[in-house]
Amino acid sequence: MTMTNPMSTATERTSSDLERIARVGLSRVVEPGDPAALEAFDGMSVLEIWELLRSGAPRTERWSMRLANTDPERDLERAQLAGGRFVIPGDAEWPEQIEVLADAGQQARRGGVPFGLWVRGEADLRQALEKSVAVVGSRACSSYGEHAAAELSAGLADNQVTVVSGGAYGVDAAAHRGALAASGLTIAVLACGVDVSYPKRNTALFDRIAAEGLILSELPPGCSPTRLRFLARNRLIAASTLGTLVVEAAVRSGALNSAGWAEQCGRAVLAVPGPITSRMSEGAHLLVRERNAVLVTSIADILEAIAPLGTELTPYPHAPAEPTDGFDLEVRRTLDAVPVLRPAPAARIAVTAGLDTATVQQCLETLAEATLIEHTPTGWRLSPTHRRALGTT
Amino acid sequence: MTMTNPMSTATERTSSDLERIARVGLSRVVEPGDPAALEAFDGMSVLEIWELLRSGAPRTERWSMRLANTDPERDLERAQLAGGRFVIPGDAEWPEQIEVLADAGQQARRGGVPFGLWVRGEADLRQALEKSVAVVGSRACSSYGEHAAAELSAGLADNQVTVVSGGAYGVDAAAHRGALAASGLTIAVLACGVDVSYPKRNTALFDRIAAEGLILSELPPGCSPTRLRFLARNRLIAASTLGTLVVEAAVRSGALNSAGWAEQCGRAVLAVPGPITSRMSEGAHLLVRERNAVLVTSIADILEAIAPLGTELTPYPHAPAEPTDGFDLEVRRTLDAVPVLRPAPAARIAVTAGLDTATVQQCLETLAEATLIEHTPTGWRLSPTHRRALGTT
Repeated sequence: MTMTNPMSTATERTSSDLERIARVGLSRVVEPGDPAALEAFDGMSVLEIWELLRSGAPRTERWSMRLANTDPERDLERAQLAGGRFVIPGDAEWPEQIEVLADAGQQARRGGVPFGLWVRGEADLRQALEKSVAVVGSRACSSYGEHAAAELSAGLADNQVTVVSGGAYGVDAAAHRGALAASGLTIAVLACGVDVSYPKRNTALFDRIAAEGLILSELPPGCSPTRLRFLARNRLIAASTLGTLVVEAAVRSGALNSAGWAEQCGRAVLAVPGPITSRMSEGAHLLVRERNAVLVTSIADILEAIAPLGTELTPYPHAPAEPTDGFDLEVRRTLDAVPVLRPAPAARIAVTAGLDTATVQQCLETLAEATLIEHTPTGWRLSPTHRRALGTT
Repeated sequence: MTMTNPMSTATERTSSDLERIARVGLSRVVEPGDPAALEAFDGMSVLEIWELLRSGAPRTERWSMRLANTDPERDLERAQLAGGRFVIPGDAEWPEQIEVLADAGQQARRGGVPFGLWVRGEADLRQALEKSVAVVGSRACSSYGEHAAAELSAGLADNQVTVVSGGAYGVDAAAHRGALAASGLTIAVLACGVDVSYPKRNTALFDRIAAEGLILSELPPGCSPTRLRFLARNRLIAASTLGTLVVEAAVRSGALNSAGWAEQCGRAVLAVPGPITSRMSEGAHLLVRERNAVLVTSIADILEAIAPLGTELTPYPHAPAEPTDGFDLEVRRTLDAVPVLRPAPAARIAVTAGLDTATVQQCLETLAEATLIEHTPTGWRLSPTHRRALGTT
């Protein structure tokens, strides 16, 4: 299937034009992820569903009653005026990974693949999502959560990973801003039309995202958010990305709903730990404890979690170097036997170390040169600096 | 075997008296967990080892050279003067669980069951350790680490769990103090004699622990700490307890060494998360990520992790109640369809909810009574308080 011009006139319409029109119309009359629609239209093609509703068939009133206010051509025009377009399966830009929702919907309350995606911004949607991570969390986050979201998102951008979030206050906004600050790609997935600014105070942020990244929604232009649409939106965020990172979230929150969708879609579920004294970190901790989420503390952790199997990874910085790393076993055994504070003569240290006094004497000199130990009138002990480095003072 | 008086004179010595004397002597001439001793004395009884060293046998010089300064009777007297005693296998107070170190020692660098335990304080050692958790971490901890250690330890004490730690500054001291503040049992396991105050500034704390709990060591009276003894002490802390809780620890630290021992001894390894911006939490996060430690955020988490299988547990507080919990499905579906901010008439909400208008009208009234939604001249929307509760404002 080739890309067609959605603005082509009725007389030159191809079958894919008709499908596009049907998908636009269905995106207005069927609520995102509506479970009743999933059941009623099971196994039917988009054109079949569209014709069924337009025929006024019985038991389709809950959808067909919306047809009176539905005008696909006008929706496409409205989107175009706002700099938007409508992407459907078969288009070069269509992100096929979201079709996982066809299966995820079977077990879940509100699954289903969107009829199409409304997109605002110049980037190629499919390419932008190819290496992407959702960064989500509480609107009422702490300054720690805001900081962590911005820093990790900037780091993802530095590694050519697109940051996807929901455009809300708090963690979402910090994630978008972090990615933009690092000149990276970011996508805001909304629970309203791509031409609607919700929340209002993020209008400037949305404009910047549209200019440098993408605004995405399955709802046609002009739609307002509802709680149901927020929940359906979460499934799209989870399905679009390689993994969902929960930065800060209360135990019952939209971010945990997103994490649940990521799990159902077979995506990585990642969580940022925080202080146990912070309610805002309870959700992330719950995910690690009870839902096997990966605890992440750095960009390296995230990249590892989303890397395809067999990809070579930068080594994880396990442990810093120690001053004793270069020494041979006898020197280290001698150091282990040197008293922390109360000095001991070489002979006593030799007994503790299980080495002969001559060997220990040599080792002590090596250690003294490295300023790890010091000599006092009554014998040897750790130097003040090494004592501090050990944390034993 | 019955308990014998360690102060009995030579003429009335029984075989268990002789074993006790041998164990006191060996606790002075063999360093805790000395791998060479484990190898050289493999399969020998304590009395056989003691006789071998006293016979001046070849290749035992590294131990027998210490015999000149070894006087078991005097060590027992010294301990008694400091309010201490020496507990050996077979004594009613001996905590048998530490014998796991006989096996743990096989794979590890410094294993081995202590020859005996020097104990200061009135509590029964075995009983005190029966339900116990090690709370360990950095000396140079943050105020968050100190707070978490004290709070969790007080909570353990409230649940009749003994708090075991190493008597150091930072997390250790906070753990002991937290347990004492809750009038609980706490045990300081030292890398020096039970009559030695190291670090000095904790002297008052040690005296209080000895008065209300126990001071424990496998080193005889008067011994000073060395780094090697700190490491060997960690194995004793891990083996004595049901689990080791790492509160705050750098990536390379004694606390992670303790966690490693806990793992080898088949004990629970627990870690407290913290901000990813804090170096002091790196060790705990590493344990969760790479060594499968249980992330704990509350007393309930710790109790669950150390509970024997099949024990009934207090339910984990998964999610707070929501204002909509009591409503039936239609009311909740209506609420889901009410716009957050821009009001909609009942008919439009009915379409979104997929319900008939009469039903929705009833549901809207129920929701308005519960102050979850509000009526405006242009229709219904969420009430300001519910909007805030959702975090969507």
